[in-house]
Amino acid sequence: MFVHTVFFWLAHPESQSDRDALKAGLESLKSVKDISVAYIGKPADTRRPVVDHTYDFSITLVFADRAAHDAYQVHPVHLEFVAECAHLWNRVQIYDAVS
Amino acid sequence: MFVHTVFFWLAHPESQSDRDALKAGLESLKSVKDISVAYIGKPADTRRPVVDHTYDFSITLVFADRAAHDAYQVHPVHLEFVAECAHLWNRVQIYDAVS
Repeated sequence: MFVHTVFFWLAHPESQSDRDALKAGLESLKSVKDISVAYIGKPADTRRPVVDHTYDFSITLVFADRAAHDAYQVHPVHLEFVAECAHLWNRVQIYDAVS
Repeated sequence: MFVHTVFFWLAHPESQSDRDALKAGLESLKSVKDISVAYIGKPADTRRPVVDHTYDFSITLVFADRAAHDAYQVHPVHLEFVAECAHLWNRVQIYDAVS
């Protein structure tokens, strides 16, 4: 498996329209067939020093393997998401894990 | 859904026995019935400025809801994992996401 986890910090977290736009963009990614499972989330209200709850949105994408992940990266739906939504965030943090 | 993602940095990443011990500890967590899905991983060889590949192990645990996550936190198997393995790492970074 290949787990691709991305955390997004909005440039304007006070903007509900920006939140809605990023959420819609993330939802659009689910149509990419290379993805096995997709989880879109927002910070839970868990509060411990080891928990980073400062991000605004997260997406965890599970792929069968690295090849499926690589196909997703260049998929038109993903490229459109980046083109349409990149202006909404000022930071992304990505972790890629294989098992 | 509630996605609990944890990244571990080993205190002695050069120790194969420490790696094996943490991997075994993480695998033991899969027996907790409150977990819907568990993904254990190591850094992929993706290399981009936005990708953090410095950790040694990751675990992504998917729960039906916050209550299942909370039950896991105090489950004896999880408590034993922390008691047995906490000396192996010098940093953990957690992200909790709800949808």
